[in-house]
Amino acid sequence: MKPEIAEAFAEALKEKDRFVGGAAYIDGRFMPLAEAAIPIGDWAYRRSDVTYDVASVWKGNFFRLDDHIDRFRRSMTTWRFTPQESDGDIRDIALAVVALSQLRDAYVGMDCLRGKAKLGLPSHPANARNYIAVFARPFGWLIAPEVQLRGAHLIIAATPRIPDSSVDPRVKNFHWGDLTQALFEAHDRGADGAILLDHQGFVTEGPGYNVFAVLDGTVVVSDHGALEGITRRTVIELCQELGIPVAVRLFSGDELREADEVFLSTTAGGIMPAARLDDRILGNDRPGPVASRLREIFWLRREAGWHGLPVNYQLPVPAGVVRG
Amino acid sequence: MKPEIAEAFAEALKEKDRFVGGAAYIDGRFMPLAEAAIPIGDWAYRRSDVTYDVASVWKGNFFRLDDHIDRFRRSMTTWRFTPQESDGDIRDIALAVVALSQLRDAYVGMDCLRGKAKLGLPSHPANARNYIAVFARPFGWLIAPEVQLRGAHLIIAATPRIPDSSVDPRVKNFHWGDLTQALFEAHDRGADGAILLDHQGFVTEGPGYNVFAVLDGTVVVSDHGALEGITRRTVIELCQELGIPVAVRLFSGDELREADEVFLSTTAGGIMPAARLDDRILGNDRPGPVASRLREIFWLRREAGWHGLPVNYQLPVPAGVVRG
Repeated sequence: MKPEIAEAFAEALKEKDRFVGGAAYIDGRFMPLAEAAIPIGDWAYRRSDVTYDVASVWKGNFFRLDDHIDRFRRSMTTWRFTPQESDGDIRDIALAVVALSQLRDAYVGMDCLRGKAKLGLPSHPANARNYIAVFARPFGWLIAPEVQLRGAHLIIAATPRIPDSSVDPRVKNFHWGDLTQALFEAHDRGADGAILLDHQGFVTEGPGYNVFAVLDGTVVVSDHGALEGITRRTVIELCQELGIPVAVRLFSGDELREADEVFLSTTAGGIMPAARLDDRILGNDRPGPVASRLREIFWLRREAGWHGLPVNYQLPVPAGVVRG
Repeated sequence: MKPEIAEAFAEALKEKDRFVGGAAYIDGRFMPLAEAAIPIGDWAYRRSDVTYDVASVWKGNFFRLDDHIDRFRRSMTTWRFTPQESDGDIRDIALAVVALSQLRDAYVGMDCLRGKAKLGLPSHPANARNYIAVFARPFGWLIAPEVQLRGAHLIIAATPRIPDSSVDPRVKNFHWGDLTQALFEAHDRGADGAILLDHQGFVTEGPGYNVFAVLDGTVVVSDHGALEGITRRTVIELCQELGIPVAVRLFSGDELREADEVFLSTTAGGIMPAARLDDRILGNDRPGPVASRLREIFWLRREAGWHGLPVNYQLPVPAGVVRG
């Protein structure tokens, strides 16, 4: 751990009880999650000029943390963010906030914020000092486990997804205006979630998840208009390993409507099967066999520490040291 | 002023020196601007689920404050925000933060934030408690006055504007990913600002401003893909009053490239003439006659308190009372 971060961590350890249940790091300082806030004038808020990533901890193990940090770095580079923290620093900080929080199941957000133009320089994002925020809060399900077991009821939203050409969805971002409208559409129609199409009618993603269809035995997921999810990648790899045909390609809303199965993937919930899509009942109004199988294997492996990095919850510890 | 707000204002007055130079109100409480912050988990930040407005104070007078509040309310209604503050409350708060700041020239932001789902309710925006933030900071020029006098150098960005169908630009919002990319394009090309076209090649708006062209003596401004700016409306009304032909209609990037004049309008800068567009020099590489005339009349009238609501800077005062 870099000396400045180690020093800030040591400072936090003096009042470690205050961090239990939720901990954050913002720009060089640790704080209880309840105190983590963004200045109202920061472009990260006022222009949503921020990229982020979300990793999860399950039973004390981070899942694919380095893959999340790799993607986070690619997002930062594409949008020209140059925070002072290295990838290694971010890894240390992520481990530190989880340890401080003492959460065995955690949602770990990492943001890179634009900030504001440095004093005396023109008010342009190129002149801003970018910085990092990382926080751990209790793991939350994007779709509740009981809904996943029953099978989610989804709609295809009337609101089209923001096109890739305007805002690159591979740079994970908070431009959720279309996704939020879709959430309201789902709410008004009594559904659990929504899927957005692009302006040409092809499937993109939903609010916080990638979308899969099973078409004649092949698992299909979109190659555009969506975040390249880490759980999405895990599903693709799992299919390859299990010998389930999988295709990453454009597919239309019409294909989705005719799918044998539909399921979603997200860090905040894993693999989530659907039972209904608009007015259509899929299969027996239950999660389909392919989605159920993938979901079961996914969680069995997660419990066993698959792709895992264990968190050392013993505090105080030499900062950043991990077990095993 | 509503008793709760009056009470919070009275509280602020006890330490009124701390507010000089920048003051804010968030959800029932006044604070110095430097302390105004948004919780890192608030959907207003994490999903850019927020609408806002910006009014200006010039020489102690608010400009068209009620028009800004009307638009703010329309934005809130469209996106289903239901904060506790009425329009009258927001007016009182706006006057209060400017008085606390003691700023004669101020930029006044008003945000309505989604918040988070109320305790015990499903994590859906319909279940959130929305709230208001208002702040006054020193007036800042989106394009510096000396650049306005020389005439701004603009580019037509390669990045297309987010379509109306995905995110309604008439609901003033922080979805600036495309606008920020356009700012970087301008920066890389040594320009002062950028204009974005829609996916069909029609003119929309730029980062923080509406775009006008003068075509064969007619002032033209887009009827879609853009915020319905209060300064834009003021320009249209001024043209009508002065007998300058004005048309609110679709117009293409090609028309813009052939325009006799190009100018911009914004609360944070008024009417801002351009002298160059991409590689083209407009007129004599100076602000054109129509834009210059409009700009001059605009500021003469602003200085005289046009459409103005005077701020009472005498503190302490019976809260919310205005002069005259």
